[in-house]
Amino acid sequence: MLDAASEPASSPFPSPEEKRAVRAAKREAVLRAAVQMFNERGFHQTSLDDVAARLGISKPTIYHYLGNKDQVLLECVTLGLGQLIAAAEEARQRPGTGADRLTAFLLRYAEINMDDFGRCVIRTGDEALAPESRARFRQLKRQIDTDLRGLIAEGLADGSLAPCDPKIAAFTIAGALNWPARWHDPTGSESPQDLARQMIDLLARGFVPR
Amino acid sequence: MLDAASEPASSPFPSPEEKRAVRAAKREAVLRAAVQMFNERGFHQTSLDDVAARLGISKPTIYHYLGNKDQVLLECVTLGLGQLIAAAEEARQRPGTGADRLTAFLLRYAEINMDDFGRCVIRTGDEALAPESRARFRQLKRQIDTDLRGLIAEGLADGSLAPCDPKIAAFTIAGALNWPARWHDPTGSESPQDLARQMIDLLARGFVPR
Repeated sequence: MLDAASEPASSPFPSPEEKRAVRAAKREAVLRAAVQMFNERGFHQTSLDDVAARLGISKPTIYHYLGNKDQVLLECVTLGLGQLIAAAEEARQRPGTGADRLTAFLLRYAEINMDDFGRCVIRTGDEALAPESRARFRQLKRQIDTDLRGLIAEGLADGSLAPCDPKIAAFTIAGALNWPARWHDPTGSESPQDLARQMIDLLARGFVPR
Repeated sequence: MLDAASEPASSPFPSPEEKRAVRAAKREAVLRAAVQMFNERGFHQTSLDDVAARLGISKPTIYHYLGNKDQVLLECVTLGLGQLIAAAEEARQRPGTGADRLTAFLLRYAEINMDDFGRCVIRTGDEALAPESRARFRQLKRQIDTDLRGLIAEGLADGSLAPCDPKIAAFTIAGALNWPARWHDPTGSESPQDLARQMIDLLARGFVPR
């Protein structure tokens, strides 16, 4: 942290901490611009020149902070998948039944997939990435699937979920909550949280009357 | 139809009907090869040269039967969406409750989306198509959404479905049944029909115990 007593705020010589913070902020700005353009136009229809132009910087600046276009996309989807993995970790530590923990996770899962980086995870086909990046992408997606199946298995064990095949249930539930990345308008009036709650309620209770 | 009595089977001069049939078969073979390659490698990673090479024909032959790559993709997704629209039409004419008709449609919907052309519909982002093709693609997708909401509304009207918002229910159910286009292995042991039944049963009954 900066120590205001020992270092004048107006020093023209940034400290190592300031440099790191500025670098991280620039990297984040590039990623945010890139992910939004990938989501709007499609990855293949967006060049790093387009991203650089939106930020008023040069393409070599993007290479400096992040690397080539494949590496930028891998970083975007890694951020989204990191948010999902963190949400599963947090849900696992909650009190309550397995169904409570599953529902808490699904709410965050749906919200993240309507946000910039999660949206990019869903909109990105494996085939868009170079082979090594693709392997990393698939590995992280398998981790989310494993986390989701684990939460379902806990709910089956304590009887708070209806009997099901955890693999098929995980794919069915995840598919439903992935799809808003393709149709939900982030500028629209429907909040991601409200929408997530309504979708999860339907998945929990089913479409035939109880 | 060919009339064996009036026309020798071995004539080297094909009738207009034969010519049309051969032309349709060639067009179908090109579309089938193209859709399978788009699904395997991704649209942007597949050239019409690749498709032509798989069939042992030339790229101009593809242009002759179908047009450019955008037109080939539009034709592939139009075929898939046509199958879905026909399935909705068929389901609407069935006897039984609204829930029965909805379930019959969902079974076909899920199966089609695990087959070549339906898979292509799901894997194709709007942004992959040229503007006029994109408008056509979106229009057909809206038709399916309208059909699905209509079937849901019928089930709400006769009380065979639990109260829900038809728009959100349509997106939730469709999303779940779209997702196998991304993960189900068409060469695997799990049959599309079995998988569809299990997914729809979960959607019908919900994941919390009754």
